[in-house]
Amino acid sequence: MPFSERVSRLKSSLIREILAAAQRPQVMSFAGGLPAEAMLPKVDWAEMPLSMGQYGMSEGEPALREALAAEARALGVPCEASQVLVVSGSQQTLDLAAKLYIDKGTEILLEAPTYLAALQIFQLFGADCLTVPLEADGPNLAELRARLEQHRPAFIYLIPTFQNPSAVRYSEAKRDAVAALLDEFGVTLIEDEPYRELTFDGGSATPIAGRLKKASWIYTGTVSKTLLPGLRVGYLIASPDLFPHLLKLKQSADLHTNRVGQWQALQWIGTEKYQQHRSELRDFYRVRRDAFQLALQTHFSDLADWNEPQGGLFFWLKLKQPLDTRTLLNAALANDVAFMPGEPFFPDPDKHHGYLRLNFSHIDPARLEEGLKRLAAVVRQAQAAQAA
Amino acid sequence: MPFSERVSRLKSSLIREILAAAQRPQVMSFAGGLPAEAMLPKVDWAEMPLSMGQYGMSEGEPALREALAAEARALGVPCEASQVLVVSGSQQTLDLAAKLYIDKGTEILLEAPTYLAALQIFQLFGADCLTVPLEADGPNLAELRARLEQHRPAFIYLIPTFQNPSAVRYSEAKRDAVAALLDEFGVTLIEDEPYRELTFDGGSATPIAGRLKKASWIYTGTVSKTLLPGLRVGYLIASPDLFPHLLKLKQSADLHTNRVGQWQALQWIGTEKYQQHRSELRDFYRVRRDAFQLALQTHFSDLADWNEPQGGLFFWLKLKQPLDTRTLLNAALANDVAFMPGEPFFPDPDKHHGYLRLNFSHIDPARLEEGLKRLAAVVRQAQAAQAA
Repeated sequence: MPFSERVSRLKSSLIREILAAAQRPQVMSFAGGLPAEAMLPKVDWAEMPLSMGQYGMSEGEPALREALAAEARALGVPCEASQVLVVSGSQQTLDLAAKLYIDKGTEILLEAPTYLAALQIFQLFGADCLTVPLEADGPNLAELRARLEQHRPAFIYLIPTFQNPSAVRYSEAKRDAVAALLDEFGVTLIEDEPYRELTFDGGSATPIAGRLKKASWIYTGTVSKTLLPGLRVGYLIASPDLFPHLLKLKQSADLHTNRVGQWQALQWIGTEKYQQHRSELRDFYRVRRDAFQLALQTHFSDLADWNEPQGGLFFWLKLKQPLDTRTLLNAALANDVAFMPGEPFFPDPDKHHGYLRLNFSHIDPARLEEGLKRLAAVVRQAQAAQAA
Repeated sequence: MPFSERVSRLKSSLIREILAAAQRPQVMSFAGGLPAEAMLPKVDWAEMPLSMGQYGMSEGEPALREALAAEARALGVPCEASQVLVVSGSQQTLDLAAKLYIDKGTEILLEAPTYLAALQIFQLFGADCLTVPLEADGPNLAELRARLEQHRPAFIYLIPTFQNPSAVRYSEAKRDAVAALLDEFGVTLIEDEPYRELTFDGGSATPIAGRLKKASWIYTGTVSKTLLPGLRVGYLIASPDLFPHLLKLKQSADLHTNRVGQWQALQWIGTEKYQQHRSELRDFYRVRRDAFQLALQTHFSDLADWNEPQGGLFFWLKLKQPLDTRTLLNAALANDVAFMPGEPFFPDPDKHHGYLRLNFSHIDPARLEEGLKRLAAVVRQAQAAQAA
């Protein structure tokens, strides 16, 4: 075996395979989490100084760090620009956090379900993944306390605002309660917030990081959902005890984040123009969410239960008659429909059959009805076969 | 200890501290490896399609992969576009290779000296670093054979063309001999070539990767030295047995490389315009190299020995009276001069005193003489103090 021990945990990525299959133009895809092309803003590059082509600082562009810190402070996260590290998308935050915390067998605590690419990188580094079940308003607090009493996880990873995949938004009360528990047990928080701005009812309670009194924390965000994912510009903000380590890990990973994307992000962050764009984005996706909800009611009312998402990019369906939704994929793709099975969003997939993640932001509205109709037929057929 | 075991190996980065100190405008810096600002080409963004803002493929842009494969084939590296992975600078190749190969205690083989940021990431993952000494035309072959006979390194990491820091360019004969040895012992090659195009005498023998018959290989390059480092666009090309693993590791690290930089790189790679630019770059740096050589002869002839570099960005000086060059740093910075001590380029720094790496590409020619004069004075003073 010439490779490292961790490579044995490098799974074939189901989502990569589904997205590859969904590239065929005839496929109606509910699988990815892509912004709608129509809402990618026109950006201007003419004023970018040539100096952005030179090597930059590992920390990121100073002006961008200042702007990001100001935005975070406005959300109640107490921080200075010196705590901001610009990264190549918030996925990189997870890679740096894995390097900082995870040895083989290190216990970490996750929501169930959780973001599958987070699970992928944490498991690659050998984490032992504990979970706490999500309810409609956040984690089950009794179970969270029990986990913290019985274990010493290196960190807890949470997506409290319009979670991927479940669309759950934590209530104010649960945010306070989670912060208090992390302070009580001294457990580091990693708070991932790519969807905060995509709120359809205007609500998004402030981050948990800003409610902590003692525990260490990493707060991470991105411009991928509200500006341009192709820039690969995200950021993390960390409590001062963690920042120097994360900075060195960033430097050893790729020296620094591309300055071209950083410059473009700076043209938007904190501006009126960005406010306006995000407002248009919310309106656009709200309309798509509404249409999706209606189409789901038509085709899935008898098959599944779900909560209407108040933000983010996904519906999370629970089949009334559970089955391993991974077994639906081939039939769906044969009918030119793609979706994300729910199992890979759990560290123990075989104990969580019967969920589907459906993206509503990217599907062509003209093909929405047909796509959901075909997907429902695939589910019905599989359930009939199972019953037979 | 809340952090991972590997964090105990996360050294304070000497080069980060030196570069930070060298930011003061009055400092004459020979420390970094930055391109000259005057030679950053003007680039045009007006034609970039908006679609470059959308999420892209982990592999990289298809057209860019084709163009990079064509360039590599022209250098004798047998490959298809399907073997090309676009990365966020070639530093990321080293991060992915570390993840692929290195557990704590894994033996790897390096040149001595070697690139210090490679050493940093390999050691972070826990590598046990074996070395083979470099001579003026490449590694000592008897020692290389001895190392391969006595050990089973997971890979050998080589920078055969204008090495950082030593500026060594392997001869044709040594390239063939190294390839034959790696085939004989079945050891994977990681070949890092950021400086290939910066040749001042027109020579640059073809890569070792193209001379292998059996061994696995990763060949890595970048646009940072010849186009714009701020884009953070590099690439790796891997033998087909390694590629799928590297692709998954890239995806889990940061999803994909920024498309904006990839698009810009594609406007240059394989074009007449890029040929022309690289030719101008070679002429420009050759003039700087010549001026540096003259100034060194004036100020360092009695203090050090060196080979005039035929390419790359660095002079590598060996003091006639060795001392720990890290102890010179404070005095140099107090005199507004920055340089890179040689010790961190060796896995066993305390056994390799007396080397200095001096960058000639970035210093203002008007300040070159004064800078080297001051640095020589710092060396003389330290040697006098040592002798006293």
